[in-house]
Amino acid sequence: MLYFDERRKWVLKAEIGREFHTDKGIVKLGDLLGKRFGEAISSSLGYSFKILRPTTFDLVMNVARPTQIMYPKDIGLIILKLGLSCGSRVIEAGTGSGAMTIAAASVVKPHGHIFTYEANPEFARIAKQNLMRAGLISYVTIKNKDARTGFDESEVDAVIIDLGDPWDVIPSAYASLAGGAPLVSFSPTINQVERTVISLRENNFVNVSTVEVILRPLRVEPGRTRPTTTMIGHTGYLTFAQKSFSAT
Amino acid sequence: MLYFDERRKWVLKAEIGREFHTDKGIVKLGDLLGKRFGEAISSSLGYSFKILRPTTFDLVMNVARPTQIMYPKDIGLIILKLGLSCGSRVIEAGTGSGAMTIAAASVVKPHGHIFTYEANPEFARIAKQNLMRAGLISYVTIKNKDARTGFDESEVDAVIIDLGDPWDVIPSAYASLAGGAPLVSFSPTINQVERTVISLRENNFVNVSTVEVILRPLRVEPGRTRPTTTMIGHTGYLTFAQKSFSAT
Amino acid sequence: MLYFDERRKWVLKAEIGREFHTDKGIVKLGDLLGKRFGEAISSSLGYSFKILRPTTFDLVMNVARPTQIMYPKDIGLIILKLGLSCGSRVIEAGTGSGAMTIAAASVVKPHGHIFTYEANPEFARIAKQNLMRAGLISYVTIKNKDARTGFDESEVDAVIIDLGDPWDVIPSAYASLAGGAPLVSFSPTINQVERTVISLRENNFVNVSTVEVILRPLRVEPGRTRPTTTMIGHTGYLTFAQKSFSAT
Amino acid sequence: MLYFDERRKWVLKAEIGREFHTDKGIVKLGDLLGKRFGEAISSSLGYSFKILRPTTFDLVMNVARPTQIMYPKDIGLIILKLGLSCGSRVIEAGTGSGAMTIAAASVVKPHGHIFTYEANPEFARIAKQNLMRAGLISYVTIKNKDARTGFDESEVDAVIIDLGDPWDVIPSAYASLAGGAPLVSFSPTINQVERTVISLRENNFVNVSTVEVILRPLRVEPGRTRPTTTMIGHTGYLTFAQKSFSAT
Repeated sequence: MLYFDERRKWVLKAEIGREFHTDKGIVKLGDLLGKRFGEAISSSLGYSFKILRPTTFDLVMNVARPTQIMYPKDIGLIILKLGLSCGSRVIEAGTGSGAMTIAAASVVKPHGHIFTYEANPEFARIAKQNLMRAGLISYVTIKNKDARTGFDESEVDAVIIDLGDPWDVIPSAYASLAGGAPLVSFSPTINQVERTVISLRENNFVNVSTVEVILRPLRVEPGRTRPTTTMIGHTGYLTFAQKSFSAT
Repeated sequence: MLYFDERRKWVLKAEIGREFHTDKGIVKLGDLLGKRFGEAISSSLGYSFKILRPTTFDLVMNVARPTQIMYPKDIGLIILKLGLSCGSRVIEAGTGSGAMTIAAASVVKPHGHIFTYEANPEFARIAKQNLMRAGLISYVTIKNKDARTGFDESEVDAVIIDLGDPWDVIPSAYASLAGGAPLVSFSPTINQVERTVISLRENNFVNVSTVEVILRPLRVEPGRTRPTTTMIGHTGYLTFAQKSFSAT
Repeated sequence: MLYFDERRKWVLKAEIGREFHTDKGIVKLGDLLGKRFGEAISSSLGYSFKILRPTTFDLVMNVARPTQIMYPKDIGLIILKLGLSCGSRVIEAGTGSGAMTIAAASVVKPHGHIFTYEANPEFARIAKQNLMRAGLISYVTIKNKDARTGFDESEVDAVIIDLGDPWDVIPSAYASLAGGAPLVSFSPTINQVERTVISLRENNFVNVSTVEVILRPLRVEPGRTRPTTTMIGHTGYLTFAQKSFSAT
Repeated sequence: MLYFDERRKWVLKAEIGREFHTDKGIVKLGDLLGKRFGEAISSSLGYSFKILRPTTFDLVMNVARPTQIMYPKDIGLIILKLGLSCGSRVIEAGTGSGAMTIAAASVVKPHGHIFTYEANPEFARIAKQNLMRAGLISYVTIKNKDARTGFDESEVDAVIIDLGDPWDVIPSAYASLAGGAPLVSFSPTINQVERTVISLRENNFVNVSTVEVILRPLRVEPGRTRPTTTMIGHTGYLTFAQKSFSAT
């Protein structure tokens, strides 16, 4: 990651012969090759750019986005609530730009795998590029097919749903999940949440809960510290549940 | 995890001869041995308890707590911002009850390791028990020593600070971090945040940002859906930064 | 208002011969008569209680509460959005404990009036007592009848609805409002809000908007300042609209 | 108020011969004269605009703004916490654009008065225009002088401070307030709040509390209801206190 300040940071590949243009001058990406993380590099205008380790957060925020992406504030809680870790096998319905896919792959690698379904071929193509750029494609299988026709995998450790009609895939999710294993569904509207919760209960899911995660940035300037004036007010609700074999 | 409803769920160990008493009757923990996740078990009063997979969330929330713990809403974002994944070597300053330690260990295992420092011997002891119960102790080294005297490890992938005086260990964190690698500090008060940010800047950290994560539970009852009446208003602020070799 | 600290403050009437018992000793309410606001009075245990001016906020928070009350954070915005001021004639449907009624009366007095409808005779009785204690009963007419049967007033300046089924009284509210005048409806659930908005649009209301007001207390202790740990997460949503004669 | 939709509404004066240009056509402001509130008027392009009653909210949001204004969410709570009502005599330090002044004047009129101090002559001039447009100038005295040199009034019912250095005027506020009467100070940063609270305590103010009011708009579309994507994250903190004659 090339870092100048809070608003000028990019995840880039070191590559001989390529240049990266910024309003603080041109950076030769080939020059990055001899550098270690933590060191600085000078632009053509003499500005110093830091070379930092890209974290999962940066990979997620750096994706090309033909769609609304899932945000780190939501993804973080999902990882804990689904218990994702090295070796997990996970189904995702609704790849979108692949932001959630990248985060999930980075946590389940190298022994786990993400099977992600995306009906829109253009989204599937861009998600693939995003995953390749993030160096995570080998831990992911992108399937350009409609999740509503069912999943090919079984006994998976978790299911992630990011679709406009999550209830359409809940029976398939139930069929593919291991016993007692968790699922999450992300939805922007309250009406989607209500219908999802009804469907989960009808399909033998238990431990159903819904939360919203709100991220509030703080502008810290000693002596003038305050929350930022504008913030993202809402991305969506997260509904979690676990598969049970019996309804009662 | 034994699940009855949202308020009655426990992470327990299946064990022959032991009983677990609830207000819905007694559950014989030995009977769990022949069961699979997702199945149900009957209590002495005839109530059905579900046997669910405990996720990282459950392990975190289930710790014995002599101290305030870090919450999943905060831990989740930390995992993404620090880029924790299988194989990461991480220093934690301020083990407390070990809630953060459990989550970090579950993500870096089996190839990574958490080196966690706790000055209070009683906290260190309870954290050890919590990590053993969670089955994660082999990925963690608990050091009962004061983090301010320095860390024994070097070139670590990330540092997590959960201390009342985070600025005391920032120079040590800098010394132990790999170049360009990230750090997080958790603090309840704004004054701690200000002083932490000043110290980070003085110690060659860059990409410094502070956020607050707010979790808002939704009570979903079709036709009567609303946010819950009470909520946790504040746990603390998260300040992130990355190590740079040069100040400018 | 008798004030000891943030948690020990009461709106009381100075009265010869009566005593007020607190855990910091007994205060003779008759002794208040010779005192001015801002002065202090000693309890039997020698503690100093301040005599402060009760504000509308204190009168609202001090009501006897058989019902959930509307909170100052919501009432304040209602006053501005409805343009309440001295002389306003206002209908309220759903008096409840009279908290909103007290605030509205305090703003429209001495030239305005609140006509408030409460179907439950017990609530109406308690609201009357609350308004008498607040010294505002002469600016309020409490009608113990069901708001759904229609309002007796016409050409009123504003209508306030705090009922479980607000849509039932929206046609009556329309009939009683002056042209172009505003209305507010308070509801805890999102489903009520949706149905209220639909009804408002069907009944020729325009400028329809819904907001939620969240109050976040800050615990200010120099050097240890932070938001409070617990807070009220949700009271309800406020939906505002104005009467139009034509739908399009 | 001329209303087309949520984003196209203006507080205007009916005036023969003047035209108002919108992207939905031209409206002849003279035509408004024969109309009643609640009726509609056609633009030159045939669109229907509603004529609605402007409320205090609209007057506040409609001010010309050379400065950051105080928002209705904050003003509403201030009115209740200060107990403003018909007849109140109020000092305001820091008129700014006059948004708070307009709301306060609308509540204390016709028997009360606002004495507002603004050091910046340009702000004072614009505030005067805003108050004249709102029809409230006769209830307000704008003083183009520095509040730090003291206030001319005494025994006032409330003081409102909206200055960068509120502590500078707290002794003057104390001197001018009636015994037991309330004060509010609005500040964007936490550091200002801390210093204000210290100053209030040093100056014999009691019942000191600080809150933040957050307004969350809801986008209500039946079947697709959700909080809005963006929102104002922070305007400022409100610190309330009351004058006591004795410190202990």
